[in-house]
Amino acid sequence: MRQTLLLLPGDGIGPEVVAQARRIAEALVPDVQIEEGLVGGASFDAHGTPLTDETLERARKASAVLLGAVGGPKWNGVGRDKRPEAGLLALRKGLDVFANLRPAFCFPALVEASSLKKDRVEGLDIMIVRELTGGVYFGQPRGIDEQGGLRRGYDTAVYTHPEIERVARVAFEIARGRDARVTSVEKSNVMESGLFWRQEVTLAHAELGGGVELSHMYADACAMELVRAPKQFDVILADNLFGDILSDEAAMLTGSIGMLPSASLGAPGVPGLYEPVHGSAPDIAGQGIANPCAAILSLEMALRWSLGKEKAADTLFAAVGKALDRGARTRDLGGDLTTRQMADAILAAL
Amino acid sequence: MRQTLLLLPGDGIGPEVVAQARRIAEALVPDVQIEEGLVGGASFDAHGTPLTDETLERARKASAVLLGAVGGPKWNGVGRDKRPEAGLLALRKGLDVFANLRPAFCFPALVEASSLKKDRVEGLDIMIVRELTGGVYFGQPRGIDEQGGLRRGYDTAVYTHPEIERVARVAFEIARGRDARVTSVEKSNVMESGLFWRQEVTLAHAELGGGVELSHMYADACAMELVRAPKQFDVILADNLFGDILSDEAAMLTGSIGMLPSASLGAPGVPGLYEPVHGSAPDIAGQGIANPCAAILSLEMALRWSLGKEKAADTLFAAVGKALDRGARTRDLGGDLTTRQMADAILAAL
Ligand SMILES: CC(C)[C@H](C(=O)O)[C@@H](O)C(=O)O
Ligand SMILES: CC(C)[C@H](C(=O)O)[C@@H](O)C(=O)O
Repeated sequence: MRQTLLLLPGDGIGPEVVAQARRIAEALVPDVQIEEGLVGGASFDAHGTPLTDETLERARKASAVLLGAVGGPKWNGVGRDKRPEAGLLALRKGLDVFANLRPAFCFPALVEASSLKKDRVEGLDIMIVRELTGGVYFGQPRGIDEQGGLRRGYDTAVYTHPEIERVARVAFEIARGRDARVTSVEKSNVMESGLFWRQEVTLAHAELGGGVELSHMYADACAMELVRAPKQFDVILADNLFGDILSDEAAMLTGSIGMLPSASLGAPGVPGLYEPVHGSAPDIAGQGIANPCAAILSLEMALRWSLGKEKAADTLFAAVGKALDRGARTRDLGGDLTTRQMADAILAAL
Repeated sequence: MRQTLLLLPGDGIGPEVVAQARRIAEALVPDVQIEEGLVGGASFDAHGTPLTDETLERARKASAVLLGAVGGPKWNGVGRDKRPEAGLLALRKGLDVFANLRPAFCFPALVEASSLKKDRVEGLDIMIVRELTGGVYFGQPRGIDEQGGLRRGYDTAVYTHPEIERVARVAFEIARGRDARVTSVEKSNVMESGLFWRQEVTLAHAELGGGVELSHMYADACAMELVRAPKQFDVILADNLFGDILSDEAAMLTGSIGMLPSASLGAPGVPGLYEPVHGSAPDIAGQGIANPCAAILSLEMALRWSLGKEKAADTLFAAVGKALDRGARTRDLGGDLTTRQMADAILAAL
């Protein structure tokens, strides 16, 4: 059976960057069947919901899903459960892609783009493994109501044993293919779910962490250490909320957020969900100037983690590096290439 | 009645740095009566609890409390509610000091210490106002138990109307003495308590925020922006958990965490709690090499915010800057002064 890649371009610059990833996929892996669908505001505009059951079904049947970005001011007035972001959360939950891999690495040609001094980021290569379908993002009860005469808003941060074990397993596996060090991050000094997280990761490590060195760090200390000495980290394992914040911080350390991809993986057999770390960037949407590299590197991750095409992935990664070495730069990187021209440069380097 | 300053040196380097702050206080404001007490591991060792009722009572009656730091590996095996950190949390809650002010600024003489390029941090001056007595730190229910056959750990992130209003008021007041801009931070896109936070801050702003410009930012975006362009911020208002993480990140941007103080304020008439941002640093405790500046600048904040001695505060702040300009540096700043010698340099500059 032919493998299928479902493209969900979404909103803002999403369609622009995904179109370029599509060109690369067509050139590099012509045997993969490419489909397209709607998500986020684009889906809301067409169907009144940011993710239709039919699109979720198509995603479930695909070999991999490549998403652009969702959201924008156009949908600010839309009800909470119909917002573009709700479509993204429903897609993650619906696919049960519980392990979000967010690499933060620095292409040699782009070291100067970082806010940090060169010696702090040169050679930086962190992989953040973020739990993606649990924690305070989905915990019940949650709401805004009145209790004892006081208005209040509340959420539940909760993790169960299997939720932590399965994502810890992924972190250990990934670490084995790297420097074999995992730093698990929580606030076990003030949160019970954090203490449970630490205990469960420690147990999982004893059982599944052979060959991997595990250490623990508080989330606030990790936020500091990422600034002070980011190269100390190999794999960072964190829950949904801490992973959200720390992976964005780590991504920005590289100075080129327009370069960074992510992969969200589930159990074996479940299609992976791939998306740039950047958002829909409504301010530059429609101008054809967005950097397509994050989307193209998300395709690279899809080739590697879902489509079993490691060699094509290696080729693509090298081509991006080569294009950068040759000076190809979109605006965000200080150059003047258009979205399409940047993809051209990568195609030329393939 | 004579004003009293209660010193709670605590653990690790706490006693070393607080001893130097005491020398400065004795020289600068001899009219203030100084007392000492135990907190954290030191209190646990003496009394079996990290904060006695008697110490809390003394703190309540003081004009201001200056704390060193708590915690260390010595108390790793101690039960959760007797840990040194539990003493700190009980003190914050017991004094009801709900507004934690954490400045992140860069002394001109220390700009080079930052991981960030000079142009990104030169002149950096952010004030983080962190809610300190609510949120997921204290919300009920919380625990680790079994439900439906699954082990789980959980916490409740909760804020009420008055909790948000009172800390927002502080942020607006502080902003008026600065650049009059407040950025309120939450994850209202995924948390109900975050949405409530945004709504309540917006309401408080309409009522109490005259002259202050309010904007909103997601916590993950804020973690990024702090790295990319930290000088864009004036006052950042955040809940207990986001404030914990983002203030540590912001502190590290300056490159000299050993310099940074904090103040925790309650309702008018409640004594403020002042403490360095750094921890108890067990690795260097007892060697007399810790940087006392954060403790000394915490004293400076106490003079300013609780003791009504603005002029003495200004003098002290200037003296610290002068000592640095003259080249005074402890080890963490690349010099070789001892804790006491650094304080001597500041005393000499007074
Ligand atoms: C858009 C938002 C709901 C999302 C999140 O918080 O997970 C985003 O920040 C991300 O990290 O993908
Ligand atoms: C020690 C710990 C409980 C504390 C906190 O999380 O509040 C610390 O990180 C702080 O910021 O003062």
